[in-house]
Amino acid sequence: MEAVQTEKGQISIHTENIFPIIKKFLYSDHEIFLRELVSNAVDATQKLNQLASFGEFGGELGELKVTVSLDEEAKTITISDNGIGMTADEIKKYINQIAFSGATDFLEKYKDKTDDKGQIIGHFGLGFYSAFMVAEKVDIVTKSYRDGAEAVRWTCDGSTEFELTPTERADRGTDIILHIAPDSEEFLSKSRLQGILDKYARFLPVAVEFDEKVVNNTNPIWTKSPADLTDEDYKNFYRELYPMGEEPLFWIHLNVDYPFNLTGILYFPRIKNELRFQREKIQLYSRQVFITDEVKDVVPDFLMMLHGVIDSPDIPLNVSRSFLQADSNVKKINGYITRKVADKLNELFNADRKGFEEKFDDIGLFIKYGILSDDKFWEKAKNFVLLKNTEGVFTTLDEYREKVQANQTDKSETLIMLYTSDRKQQDAYIESARRRGYDVLLMDNVIDAHFINALEQKLEKVRFQRVDADTLDKLIDKGLNNESVLSEADQTKLKEVFEQVLDNKMLHVSVEAQPTDELPVTITMPEFMRRMKDMSALSGEQSFYGNLPVTYNVVVNANHPLIGKVLAESDADAQKAVVKQVYDLALLSQNMLTGADLTAFVKRTVAGLV
Amino acid sequence: MEAVQTEKGQISIHTENIFPIIKKFLYSDHEIFLRELVSNAVDATQKLNQLASFGEFGGELGELKVTVSLDEEAKTITISDNGIGMTADEIKKYINQIAFSGATDFLEKYKDKTDDKGQIIGHFGLGFYSAFMVAEKVDIVTKSYRDGAEAVRWTCDGSTEFELTPTERADRGTDIILHIAPDSEEFLSKSRLQGILDKYARFLPVAVEFDEKVVNNTNPIWTKSPADLTDEDYKNFYRELYPMGEEPLFWIHLNVDYPFNLTGILYFPRIKNELRFQREKIQLYSRQVFITDEVKDVVPDFLMMLHGVIDSPDIPLNVSRSFLQADSNVKKINGYITRKVADKLNELFNADRKGFEEKFDDIGLFIKYGILSDDKFWEKAKNFVLLKNTEGVFTTLDEYREKVQANQTDKSETLIMLYTSDRKQQDAYIESARRRGYDVLLMDNVIDAHFINALEQKLEKVRFQRVDADTLDKLIDKGLNNESVLSEADQTKLKEVFEQVLDNKMLHVSVEAQPTDELPVTITMPEFMRRMKDMSALSGEQSFYGNLPVTYNVVVNANHPLIGKVLAESDADAQKAVVKQVYDLALLSQNMLTGADLTAFVKRTVAGLV
Repeated sequence: MEAVQTEKGQISIHTENIFPIIKKFLYSDHEIFLRELVSNAVDATQKLNQLASFGEFGGELGELKVTVSLDEEAKTITISDNGIGMTADEIKKYINQIAFSGATDFLEKYKDKTDDKGQIIGHFGLGFYSAFMVAEKVDIVTKSYRDGAEAVRWTCDGSTEFELTPTERADRGTDIILHIAPDSEEFLSKSRLQGILDKYARFLPVAVEFDEKVVNNTNPIWTKSPADLTDEDYKNFYRELYPMGEEPLFWIHLNVDYPFNLTGILYFPRIKNELRFQREKIQLYSRQVFITDEVKDVVPDFLMMLHGVIDSPDIPLNVSRSFLQADSNVKKINGYITRKVADKLNELFNADRKGFEEKFDDIGLFIKYGILSDDKFWEKAKNFVLLKNTEGVFTTLDEYREKVQANQTDKSETLIMLYTSDRKQQDAYIESARRRGYDVLLMDNVIDAHFINALEQKLEKVRFQRVDADTLDKLIDKGLNNESVLSEADQTKLKEVFEQVLDNKMLHVSVEAQPTDELPVTITMPEFMRRMKDMSALSGEQSFYGNLPVTYNVVVNANHPLIGKVLAESDADAQKAVVKQVYDLALLSQNMLTGADLTAFVKRTVAGLV
Repeated sequence: MEAVQTEKGQISIHTENIFPIIKKFLYSDHEIFLRELVSNAVDATQKLNQLASFGEFGGELGELKVTVSLDEEAKTITISDNGIGMTADEIKKYINQIAFSGATDFLEKYKDKTDDKGQIIGHFGLGFYSAFMVAEKVDIVTKSYRDGAEAVRWTCDGSTEFELTPTERADRGTDIILHIAPDSEEFLSKSRLQGILDKYARFLPVAVEFDEKVVNNTNPIWTKSPADLTDEDYKNFYRELYPMGEEPLFWIHLNVDYPFNLTGILYFPRIKNELRFQREKIQLYSRQVFITDEVKDVVPDFLMMLHGVIDSPDIPLNVSRSFLQADSNVKKINGYITRKVADKLNELFNADRKGFEEKFDDIGLFIKYGILSDDKFWEKAKNFVLLKNTEGVFTTLDEYREKVQANQTDKSETLIMLYTSDRKQQDAYIESARRRGYDVLLMDNVIDAHFINALEQKLEKVRFQRVDADTLDKLIDKGLNNESVLSEADQTKLKEVFEQVLDNKMLHVSVEAQPTDELPVTITMPEFMRRMKDMSALSGEQSFYGNLPVTYNVVVNANHPLIGKVLAESDADAQKAVVKQVYDLALLSQNMLTGADLTAFVKRTVAGLV
């Protein structure tokens, strides 16, 4: 065995081993090959344009375009362009040496002449090789724009061997001819290719022709200046993106140069209270090339419900999610979008309060979600977030405090905001509150349980109580007591009677002096316990509160004439019957009389009518 | 410009360009480096073991193990093994030339001696380089098992340059020393490393030591023969996998050699009717190396709710999802698991009917889901899938047909299976059906709506009707008519009275002669329309049926004494009051009296009691 010598050297990669990895693992979707090759072709024409603008190309530009063609019989797909083309030397440099990015080289050479927005896609260095994901053989037929250039044909059958031969080509430009492999024949279909082009090439900046039609809009409105656009332009673009969608409520045109490059248009759709948000409606582009509609991490979570387009060359692509989260550009973009959205909402609120209110059922969910997830957003949103009451009246937080302060402040100087989570189900309780002149807020969206908690933390001396959390005198305890028509002894006796008839340890019976227009019996569940239970149910997890048995308060109205009757009744069965009936009616009001108990109640009531 | 010459050549890859791609893009989770390096170390010890068994290593094997150590001060993580080690030449071959898989080479050399189950991991050819995802410098200190081998140190700072020097190492084996980069210091934490090892190394076949403790169980029970295992072993293993879980219902030990290699244990957990299935509870291993808990595509969708472990070297790893779906091994595995599960259920059913029934609330969901998604599963499951009625009695499909045939076959020879989707809500209707001696099935799981549709297609001359879809005489129309106490003219008049009072075009009033023990008024919704509406609501999509207005049938019972009273009442207001009350009671029975109408009903009823 030879003795070990100190040595230095280069790690090498065996192409024959790495090539299959590039071919198979680079992209998970094989259809990407078309995006890559068409993007490269667009690139080639744009480079020519740029050379012309630098005075380095004096020839006729002509109509620059890319053509995709399908020959089902020959089993080929060809991507052609009339861009800069390549010489034999350039092929050797850019094609035969993988990952020696042509775009990098080009940018390097012209970096003094191009500005920050230079339209060269630099991300797709390995893109050409994606052709081998679907092709068993690839030909390149190309002729450089340079004077006197000779056309050349490059051929490779997917092994690492290539062949380069002289050939003929009338004009400058490049054809990439894919001889589709048997396992990829799905791509030899007009509708399949059309579908892929619709997805990725829709807004490419150079005309792309397929099946004798141009498939793209080369000047989508996000690349234009807002000053040059009308409302109708924005709405038309929305319809172009989402042909089935309802008209958007409004939109924000994004345009930032520094410290990152980003353009785009975000639309606020009509969503109402729908639980199923239509996420994944924002499309991400890089210099007009469609990349993905998975914008998680780029757009703040609470704005994922927005629709539209974001175009930025500064968002790292083809990288893992965890990488994206940590990217500082992505974080900045996130903050920028949040700020722009808050400013736009504030502007709408100030400019047209009525219009803002009309839109609030649609945009309230965004705003509340934003308040929950981002303190910076709350700082702006607290001025325009609206509360809606059961009568449909909207107020800001400050206005609402002003409105209810006089009547709804309790003895500890806390402002009690009453709310209902279900207008129909809590109707009897809402009606009672309204009778006392109290205002009841409508908090019936899934997000409202969280929103209420957030407001209690953010606002001082404010507490929320659901209308059925207690009797009204306790909900807003002003320290005044109603006079009871019953003696202490009668009240104790009444409590005993009810406890005996109801015979349920989960019910807590109390006797209170309430106005005579309240029901004889009311069932309530304390706010705190119900809220904990709701949260626990929402989270779907086991928890201390979720597992607590449900206990209810049964409040007997000492002043109600029927209760007097109960007390006066000397026949035990008759007394029991009345107690049962008033308790069932209380259950009904709380939507808690169900199953066999309800069936029995209905039968009993029918029998009473006969 | 030189003329183009025909030439052939090799495509080359510039290492300096491809290296960053390997480092950054190979794995999306950086923590994978530890799995890769520990797997390699395990490999190295197993290879030595194998060489010894071939008689090619005569030395002392000793206690083969892998040690992971952390030096927070020096900012290093070291993975050591006492396996085969490497000579300088082997380092040059296996480390300096990326993707020249050492395992492939080894397998090639010994292919006649190893059987199909040879324990060499061949998937991780590029694994070593994952070290550079977290390390700014990597040292390898290694000494081959060969007699007289010299120890050697290899160092690389993440560029493509390496240095190789002679060094000292007492015994055979390899240390991989990672000098952790500043952006990866999160890994310099005992608990973090422990967490990663718990995830990936838990069942590696060679002892892995960290922080002076062995972190793995080298002989997990799925590698053993079922004959050698007791129920307690299976339960213990379940507890090891899911310390917080309830005891499983039963399990299936998977073990197949051909046409693919797969072992594993699948547990049926207790799930009841929970909507939130605990998916992602099956762990996928490749030769005891944890790969992922995303088993979508490997396991049939309806069995994703199972728990446990699947170990197969034949499932392609590190490939895209779309690739996995098309993989023929994966398809076979899918079919195999389905068959094994069906056989196990059948065996349980035959061996212990009572036990099977007791478990049915837990396993019914799997079985029904399986029936819906796989015809081959249905062929077996139709013998053991159970129906449960409102009294908790279980029957097979055949038994149920037998049981209800005599009483529930209608005049067109169709067997009508009555069901309830909500026992509480449909209580009054269930009670009516039971009074006639009809059986009512409990179909209250989310899946039951689909299951009912499937059964109607699969079984002949069977139709399902929800108990509130019509009056009982119509639900099971035996061609018999009840005698009506009212004349045709009275019935017409009655219909007019009801239509006038209800004044709602969405209600369809009819007068029918029903038994006197039915309610005076019953509200029904035809099965077909309700089913279409339910489906449409479940799918969450806009559809024709979803958008249809809701119409109900209001059936007035001609023979009920209260209806006679309505007819006899000459005062219009009094008549209206009774109609309103009996209609409200019908609404109550159908849980349709809500909001202000319910509040008014309660008040009216309270007032009537005073």
